Amino acid sequence: MSARRLSGFPEWTPAQRWVEMRMLDRLRDTFELHGFAPLQTRAVEPLSQLLSKGETSKEVYVLSRLQGQGGDKDGAGDEDRLGLHFDLTVPLARWVVENAGQLTFPFKRYQIQPVWRGERPQDGRFREFVQADIDVIGNGTLPDHYEVDAALVMVEALLRLDVGAVRMRVSHRRLAEGMLRGAGIDDPAAGLAALDKLAKIGPEAVGTLLEAAGASPAQAAVCLEFAGLRGDGAVEAAVDLAARHGIGGDLVDEGAARLAALVSAAGSVVPGAVIADLSIARGLDYYTGSVYETELVGHERLGSICSGGRYDELATDGSVHYPGVGLSIGLTRLLSRVFANGLTASRAVPTCVLVAVDSEDERGRSDAVARALRARGIPADTAPTAAKYGRQIRHADRLGIPFVWFPAAEGPGQVKDIRSGDQVPADPDTWQPPAADLVPSPVSGHADS
Amino acid sequence: MSARRLSGFPEWTPAQRWVEMRMLDRLRDTFELHGFAPLQTRAVEPLSQLLSKGETSKEVYVLSRLQGQGGDKDGAGDEDRLGLHFDLTVPLARWVVENAGQLTFPFKRYQIQPVWRGERPQDGRFREFVQADIDVIGNGTLPDHYEVDAALVMVEALLRLDVGAVRMRVSHRRLAEGMLRGAGIDDPAAGLAALDKLAKIGPEAVGTLLEAAGASPAQAAVCLEFAGLRGDGAVEAAVDLAARHGIGGDLVDEGAARLAALVSAAGSVVPGAVIADLSIARGLDYYTGSVYETELVGHERLGSICSGGRYDELATDGSVHYPGVGLSIGLTRLLSRVFANGLTASRAVPTCVLVAVDSEDERGRSDAVARALRARGIPADTAPTAAKYGRQIRHADRLGIPFVWFPAAEGPGQVKDIRSGDQVPADPDTWQPPAADLVPSPVSGHADS
Repeated sequence: MSARRLSGFPEWTPAQRWVEMRMLDRLRDTFELHGFAPLQTRAVEPLSQLLSKGETSKEVYVLSRLQGQGGDKDGAGDEDRLGLHFDLTVPLARWVVENAGQLTFPFKRYQIQPVWRGERPQDGRFREFVQADIDVIGNGTLPDHYEVDAALVMVEALLRLDVGAVRMRVSHRRLAEGMLRGAGIDDPAAGLAALDKLAKIGPEAVGTLLEAAGASPAQAAVCLEFAGLRGDGAVEAAVDLAARHGIGGDLVDEGAARLAALVSAAGSVVPGAVIADLSIARGLDYYTGSVYETELVGHERLGSICSGGRYDELATDGSVHYPGVGLSIGLTRLLSRVFANGLTASRAVPTCVLVAVDSEDERGRSDAVARALRARGIPADTAPTAAKYGRQIRHADRLGIPFVWFPAAEGPGQVKDIRSGDQVPADPDTWQPPAADLVPSPVSGHADS
Repeated sequence: MSARRLSGFPEWTPAQRWVEMRMLDRLRDTFELHGFAPLQTRAVEPLSQLLSKGETSKEVYVLSRLQGQGGDKDGAGDEDRLGLHFDLTVPLARWVVENAGQLTFPFKRYQIQPVWRGERPQDGRFREFVQADIDVIGNGTLPDHYEVDAALVMVEALLRLDVGAVRMRVSHRRLAEGMLRGAGIDDPAAGLAALDKLAKIGPEAVGTLLEAAGASPAQAAVCLEFAGLRGDGAVEAAVDLAARHGIGGDLVDEGAARLAALVSAAGSVVPGAVIADLSIARGLDYYTGSVYETELVGHERLGSICSGGRYDELATDGSVHYPGVGLSIGLTRLLSRVFANGLTASRAVPTCVLVAVDSEDERGRSDAVARALRARGIPADTAPTAAKYGRQIRHADRLGIPFVWFPAAEGPGQVKDIRSGDQVPADPDTWQPPAADLVPSPVSGHADS
């Protein structure tokens, strides 16, 4: 059996997985406290569904059955083939349309699942990774306040992960679209795609793209000035910039008002965590309102760890539209960084107490002690073999298990803290470990990068 | 966007997903109390890895990248292609070999993930389903007591799911192999495959298969009598049957002794839950010791919901062998039955309190009440719009939310239990709902099948 690691398919150690699960617990707890219902969708979607978002088609993994090759394809078009979902938004849109009759709107759901993208793995990019999404979906309409609510839920969720400060940078598609149209760009999608590349290719190259999209050099400069606005006063400065260049209309006014309201409402709840940044464009062209990207302060080069926006047209059954707003945490990207920085669990196993075994004939006595401890919520295991006590203690030590229990032929036995060497008589029906030792806790190990 | 359900890919409602998550919590809690460490492996394995277990090859889903078609295949053999894992045992074996240098043995891990099989969906069979596995892996050797321990952990885990009584039926490969060899069958794998079909095709057809494998009609009859032994005294009866027909040797003696020890040890901890059943053969030919199947009492026709066994040869790096014992709960199969019987959550959303909104200008006041409740662990949401109170209450009612909070311009406001109609003044910093209302609970709804 050949052992091979696959690039782009990360696998965490059990200790890292422990940390990940504690983070998943906190995400789930935060989302549920805010009234989001849990949802999981199947891993596969018909290819026709996945390909309806053109720009991501190249990343899709397509499935075929090993024994069905050839036969599977006979007379079957793309719409009958299955692919792995590359995000959780397309499956949600499909699921909402399928189940709309049973739902009460606005429908708030969270969804935490792996997604797959068949792209070339790069630094910080994965072929399999976990996303944690929240979305609020309306039936026909969706009140604007959900664009504030959803962003604040994610800021709270990220802060509860205890990975450091986060900065959510927000903009509004209508404001950007109004500016771009006013600057001579009739296809705002092309303009947004250009602005989206600002951090990557720089203002000069973006200017060239904007001119190719219809702007004059002076108009391109206005767009670049707009995209350079950030932080306190950015929205007012954008409105002022538009006015100075004779750019106006509902798009600018409404986009600016909604962006200002988002930043202001967020500032009153979590000061400084949500800032306006008019360079935020987001590549996906289905966004129609607020757009969000979030960076880990001090790790800005990691890229966005939580992105999303408002979309009015993603889900529809042809007659009814289901507008929504949602954000997605890229948990695997975040974990790859905190694990590389050394975060791990304080021990490799859940076990708090290893119960020593005197002899194989007496294993039942040790099993009974372990059962008594577990009955009170204390993770316990019995020693693998009735080796010499020194070897049993070394086994516990290698796994980081803090306590070894020595059952007695009669009476309660003794428990030893193998870190301090302290050993005391103890009763498995009443003994309690210190709270900090009950289960593993997150610790900062040494960084490996 | 066309909405289509896919046969074999079940999707639960959010209320059902709530129940599933509570069950996953209990499984995880049970496994961790017993010292099993969490592990997740990637969803894909190289095809060469998956195909090393011949009989399952037909079920594998193979991946290809949409943009890589043609190009992906150039010069690349099967060993470079990726398939979705069809169980969690093959990935574990690969992972253990890869990480053996960092592990302390015996290595105990649990793993709860979806698996995929490209077979034709039938009643109770799925193409995507969740397995919950535990395994104990040794380095070179593995003490026999883990064959008892692992079985008891799974019985405890299943009982804690609160889905009713379970019956684990166990046998031992060595005992069966000794009987088959003694009855003239030189290829015990063929004999075991025949016995494995007993429930499906009946004794007459199995007898024909046994004769095809080398048994005389009289010897086939002995094998069938052996496979009919079950419950108290089955092991002693098997030993007696062997002796009467001059069948003996180490395989029979050791297999019988270990099976008797398993049943006896289990009987002292959970009386009646684990019984010997010598018809249990298990199709997969890598088992070498105890084999287990588990049925939900009263739902025997559902098939096994938890199966496994001991395997000595699954994982090896060529020189070192890693023997193991493990069991796998088929959670999706189990859930498909309990959901069909009507089990669901008492409400569709986690929300305990809906905070009413007087007017959009006063939404901040309602948000503050919701925040105060959440800060004390009470799931709360604000009303979608400032509709008339009657409409806001109906919104809560449709979602099953038990309480509606009415903030006041000054002072604490009032909270209404919309089931009883009771309304009392309350302070969001101190009010506590009854414990039973805090989060949804499992309830038996009406059956839909």
